[in-house]
Amino acid sequence: MFATVMHGPGDVRFEKVEDPKIVKPTDSIIKLSATCICGSDLWPYRGLQPNEGPAHMGHEYCGVVVEVGSAVRTVRPGQFVVGSFCLSDNTCPHCKFGFQSSCEQREFMSGAQAPYARVPLADGTLVATVEMPSDDLIPHLLATSDVLGTGWYAADAANVRAGSTAVVVGDGAVGLMAVVAAKEMGAGRIIAMSRHKSRQELARAFGATDIVAERGDAGIERVKELTRGVGADSVMECVGTQEAMTQAINCTRPGGSIGYVGVPHGVTLDGATMFFAQRRMLGGPAPVRRFLPNLMDRVLNDRIKPGKVFDLVLPLSDVAEGYRAMDQRRAIKTLLTV
Amino acid sequence: MFATVMHGPGDVRFEKVEDPKIVKPTDSIIKLSATCICGSDLWPYRGLQPNEGPAHMGHEYCGVVVEVGSAVRTVRPGQFVVGSFCLSDNTCPHCKFGFQSSCEQREFMSGAQAPYARVPLADGTLVATVEMPSDDLIPHLLATSDVLGTGWYAADAANVRAGSTAVVVGDGAVGLMAVVAAKEMGAGRIIAMSRHKSRQELARAFGATDIVAERGDAGIERVKELTRGVGADSVMECVGTQEAMTQAINCTRPGGSIGYVGVPHGVTLDGATMFFAQRRMLGGPAPVRRFLPNLMDRVLNDRIKPGKVFDLVLPLSDVAEGYRAMDQRRAIKTLLTV
Repeated sequence: MFATVMHGPGDVRFEKVEDPKIVKPTDSIIKLSATCICGSDLWPYRGLQPNEGPAHMGHEYCGVVVEVGSAVRTVRPGQFVVGSFCLSDNTCPHCKFGFQSSCEQREFMSGAQAPYARVPLADGTLVATVEMPSDDLIPHLLATSDVLGTGWYAADAANVRAGSTAVVVGDGAVGLMAVVAAKEMGAGRIIAMSRHKSRQELARAFGATDIVAERGDAGIERVKELTRGVGADSVMECVGTQEAMTQAINCTRPGGSIGYVGVPHGVTLDGATMFFAQRRMLGGPAPVRRFLPNLMDRVLNDRIKPGKVFDLVLPLSDVAEGYRAMDQRRAIKTLLTV
Repeated sequence: MFATVMHGPGDVRFEKVEDPKIVKPTDSIIKLSATCICGSDLWPYRGLQPNEGPAHMGHEYCGVVVEVGSAVRTVRPGQFVVGSFCLSDNTCPHCKFGFQSSCEQREFMSGAQAPYARVPLADGTLVATVEMPSDDLIPHLLATSDVLGTGWYAADAANVRAGSTAVVVGDGAVGLMAVVAAKEMGAGRIIAMSRHKSRQELARAFGATDIVAERGDAGIERVKELTRGVGADSVMECVGTQEAMTQAINCTRPGGSIGYVGVPHGVTLDGATMFFAQRRMLGGPAPVRRFLPNLMDRVLNDRIKPGKVFDLVLPLSDVAEGYRAMDQRRAIKTLLTV
C-alpha cells in the first residue's frame, strides 16, 4: 500500500510501504475510514524533536476491523472502531486507575496516516460501535481518538465543574477541543485566548463566552479583569511552551487547577514559585481510553460536532500538503480521506 | 515584656521588646497559653534564607484574648482561641474558595514566641472554643495552629481517601502530622519514610503501617515493592529539597497526587518529566483556617493527640536552647511554656 513516511524535517512522502500485518496475537488490522494530522506531528516536521530515520506517521484513527490476532476477544472483523493514540491493555493497575496513557504495556500508535493500520492491544484499546456509523459522523468520531480526548483530559485535569470559570491557553485544535469539553462539563464561563479571527469564531461556535486576544502579561491582565481580579478556577494549557505555561499559571486563581496537555518543550517550573502560587497541576498524554465510550456516545447522539475542527480536507495522497498547510497555519487541522 | 528575637543565623535571644499593642481596629492581643518553634524557623537560623535584621520570631500560637480592636466582632477578651500562621480575612474570594493562605489581605504571623502577641485580622483568623480547655489539651491545640494544619493540608492536597495508599516523605514534625492526617482520612496504608528510630516509633504511634528507612533510589524501590510495583495513590512531601521532591514524585503512581508542604529551597521541576510522569501536584502555605474548626474539634473530643510531636518542653526564656536542640536534631519540635 501507499502511506505516509516522514524522512526528516519538512520531508513527508506518500510512498509505497509494506502492508501492515498481525505481529502479536493481541493485534488487529483496521481499514481506516479517515485519518488526520496532529499538531504533535509538527514537532518533528519542524525539526524541534529528534528524527530517528524514516517514520510511519499517524496516530489518530477510526475504521473497520479487517483482521484480528488469535487472542483478541472483544472486537471482530466488520466492526467499526475508534481507539486512542495511546495503546493500552485496559486491565493493568494504571488503566484501572483511569490512566491508560501510563499503561504498563503502553505503546504509542503509529502508521495511521495510511489506508490500513495495525492496532496492537486491540482488546484494551479499541471501542466498537453497535452499528456502522453514517459517513457524516466519521470526522467527529475520528476527533475522539486524540484531539477531542486530549482537550477533554485538559478540562478533566483542570477540574472543570458546572459553573466553573475556565480559560483555554492555545487556539490550536486541542485548545478548541478543550473549549468543547469545558462547555460539555458545564463551565459557566469559557475564556478562549486566541489572536486569530477564524479560530476565535470556531471557539465561540464551540461554546467560548469570551475571547482574549492579548498574550503574555497583557493577556493575564485581561483574564484578571474578566474574573474581578480573582483568576480562573480552571485553566487548560494546550501549547507546551514556557510562555504558554507561564500564562496558564498566572491566569489561575490560588487553589485553582491547571490541566496541561501541550507536550512541554523547554518548560521549567520553579518549585518555590509553584508553592506560593498554590496551583493544582496535572498533565500528560491523555488517557483517552477512559473517556472514549462517553465521547463516542456524545458524537453518535449528535450532541457534539468536534469534527468541525477539521478545516482542510485532502485525499491521503496529498498528505504532504496537509502538513505544509498546518505548519504555515493555513489550516487548523487536516483530515485525510482514504 | 521579654520575647524571642533572631539577630542572625544561630543567634536567637530572649530579650526585652515592646509590649504588643492594637495597631489596626481589626487587631487582637492574646496572652499565649503556650508557643513553639517551627521547622521553618530553622531556615533563617541556619542562614539558608536571607536575614533582614532582628526578627520577632514565632507564628504558632494559642491563648486567651486580652484585647481587641474596635472593629473586631467575633472574638472577645477572655476567650480561648487558636489561629493559623497565615492571617486572613476569611471573606475574600480566595478565602471563600478555601485558600485562606492566599487571602487578598494575607499576612504571616510573627512574634508569637512571647508571652503576648498581636494577631491582626482577628475576626478572620481566630477560632474560639466554647469553654476554656484544660491544660493537658494545650499542646494538642497549639499543634493545630500550623504543624498539624500543614500536615493535614499535605494529605488533603494529595487527595488521601478512605483506603488510599499514602507515603510521607520527611519525618520532621510536619511529616509526622501528615501521618496523623492520613490516618484520620482513612488511608488504608501509610508508609512513613524515616531513618530515625524515635521518629519511626512516633510515626507508628500516629498510624503509619510501614516504615521505609531507605532514601533516594533505594527508598523509591522499596515503596514500589510495597505497592506491587504500582506506586502510592497519595504522597506528602514534607521537606522542601530537590531530593525529597524527586523521591516524592517517583513514589507516586501515574495519576496519583502529591501534596507538597515543605517550602521548596532550590527545587526545580522539568516540564516534560512532570508531563510524562503524570502526577497531580498541589502545594503551598497551608490554608489552616479551612481545617481549623475540624482539627480543634478532633482535639477537644480526644480523638487525636498531635501534641505528642513535642518531644522537648522548655520555658520560653530557654528559647535559644530550643532552637539549638532542633537544629542539631536532638528534638523533633520544642514546646515553649510561658
